[in-house]
Amino acid sequence: VPANDHRLSERAAISILERALGGQRSRDVRVGIGDDAAVLAGGLVWTLDASLEGVHFDRRWLSLEQVGNRAIEAAVSDLAAMGAMPVAALVGLALPNRVTRREVDALARGQARAARRTRCPIVGGNITRGPALSLTTTVLGRAQRPLLRKGARAGDELWLVGSVGLARAGLLLLQQKRARPAVAVRAWREPRALLREGHALVGRASACIDVSDGLASDAFHLAGESGVALVIDETTLVTPLLRSASRALGVAPEELALTGGEDYALLATGPRRRRPAFAKRIGSVERGSGVFLAGSGPRRALARGGFDHLG
Amino acid sequence: VPANDHRLSERAAISILERALGGQRSRDVRVGIGDDAAVLAGGLVWTLDASLEGVHFDRRWLSLEQVGNRAIEAAVSDLAAMGAMPVAALVGLALPNRVTRREVDALARGQARAARRTRCPIVGGNITRGPALSLTTTVLGRAQRPLLRKGARAGDELWLVGSVGLARAGLLLLQQKRARPAVAVRAWREPRALLREGHALVGRASACIDVSDGLASDAFHLAGESGVALVIDETTLVTPLLRSASRALGVAPEELALTGGEDYALLATGPRRRRPAFAKRIGSVERGSGVFLAGSGPRRALARGGFDHLG
Repeated sequence: VPANDHRLSERAAISILERALGGQRSRDVRVGIGDDAAVLAGGLVWTLDASLEGVHFDRRWLSLEQVGNRAIEAAVSDLAAMGAMPVAALVGLALPNRVTRREVDALARGQARAARRTRCPIVGGNITRGPALSLTTTVLGRAQRPLLRKGARAGDELWLVGSVGLARAGLLLLQQKRARPAVAVRAWREPRALLREGHALVGRASACIDVSDGLASDAFHLAGESGVALVIDETTLVTPLLRSASRALGVAPEELALTGGEDYALLATGPRRRRPAFAKRIGSVERGSGVFLAGSGPRRALARGGFDHLG
Repeated sequence: VPANDHRLSERAAISILERALGGQRSRDVRVGIGDDAAVLAGGLVWTLDASLEGVHFDRRWLSLEQVGNRAIEAAVSDLAAMGAMPVAALVGLALPNRVTRREVDALARGQARAARRTRCPIVGGNITRGPALSLTTTVLGRAQRPLLRKGARAGDELWLVGSVGLARAGLLLLQQKRARPAVAVRAWREPRALLREGHALVGRASACIDVSDGLASDAFHLAGESGVALVIDETTLVTPLLRSASRALGVAPEELALTGGEDYALLATGPRRRRPAFAKRIGSVERGSGVFLAGSGPRRALARGGFDHLG
């Protein structure tokens, strides 16, 4: 067995699948593998997201009600990044043998809460036995003109909607058995898909992605798909809240902001004159490729890396 | 902890979810939880299906190429039962750490083969690490007038399209390390969603379901949703092929036919004059409730049971 046959990275697995599956043409498909969601004829936007115990969540830090709620919000966040509004969802549950009625009830309560908040009725799905608790959520939405990862142009500003780093700080605090700052813990436990903001970016933003893997990692996705370089002004990322969480943890706030995902913020690009009030300028788009940090010191290139789900 | 808090059945879990999730209304939703697939405005038909190693398949009896192929065919079969044709699919993969490049390649090759055969391009999805190999497939299709589980009327005939029992015989043969009759082994390894037949049932059948759990179990679903009794003529289920597989196994062919799922046959009802040539009459629809067996001996009621994924 060749050495490269082991410890397959997520990127390698995706590229195998893209090669094997990407070739089939259809007049119904506008955007296929590679964006936050697929785009079908008629402005349908469609995504699938998984949440597994031991990989994506740990029940020491989340109630099952929160697990259910997060699974829906995370899936819907892919629609927010496309500027789409939800139509409906299907949920697939794998339940270990030991699961109780009360636990399934809590999960479903959390899913129902997010479904109501995002106006995304759950219209079916699948239940199976499985070795670990797992939730798979597929969401269908509609967008007149979906925002894609590609479209950023040199000269655009780089915008952030929502916060980055707080959710990561919240998880690290919980792992240290601390509950403060509460706003960070809440950011991790109770994320909200930025649907209204994403929808309002249509016609303003040139490209958009939701920050689920981490700001740096998702910036690489947007830069790559758009064929541009992104320059992030680090100093704009550090809010007073993030600074206080970072002090409590002893971790640099810039590191939390750049590597933390799961806040489900939106990273977008667009011309200065079109920036909405809810978006914060955190950098700029230039010709070239890659992601750079600028701010107080000299500009430096970020290494492509970030959180790899198979790593 | 109360005793009923343990060993939750699939039916109990579904009813918890239906209660928690079923309440949300939307003008986009025509048919929600409870049919083979959800039906949305515009004739969109949508389903989700899971295939887990150790629960739904065993790699001793299937190559990974076949695992990938089956996952797509099984999901598409739900569309066939609604009389819908596929638009596109998303696939979610959970891969254990030990998975190799070659294995992912084989899975994707199988998925791509079924995607081509069923004209259902795979347009995206999700990859994650997980404790067991798992494939979640969601398929979107279109039907002008979707066939539902409800709609069967007393006086209709009961129709079978495709075979039942052969796939189950094939699995039992493999478990006994036997490869013949090869047609049974192939029925289990290489199922095909009956898309053309399902589509041709629109305007002819009054109700339809795909036989994935087992003929008896799925007959109960159709009878329950339609509010009728189904009478199955056992003698019609035993084909020469099933008889020869049953002899090789020493299992009654009627038992294989009634409990075997995974052939992905279609069970439908409709008036005699509308029965298409490819459908076989296997019984009748009567007023009442439940599923009955008739044939050579006296009529008897079947007990509601069948394969329970959480059992």
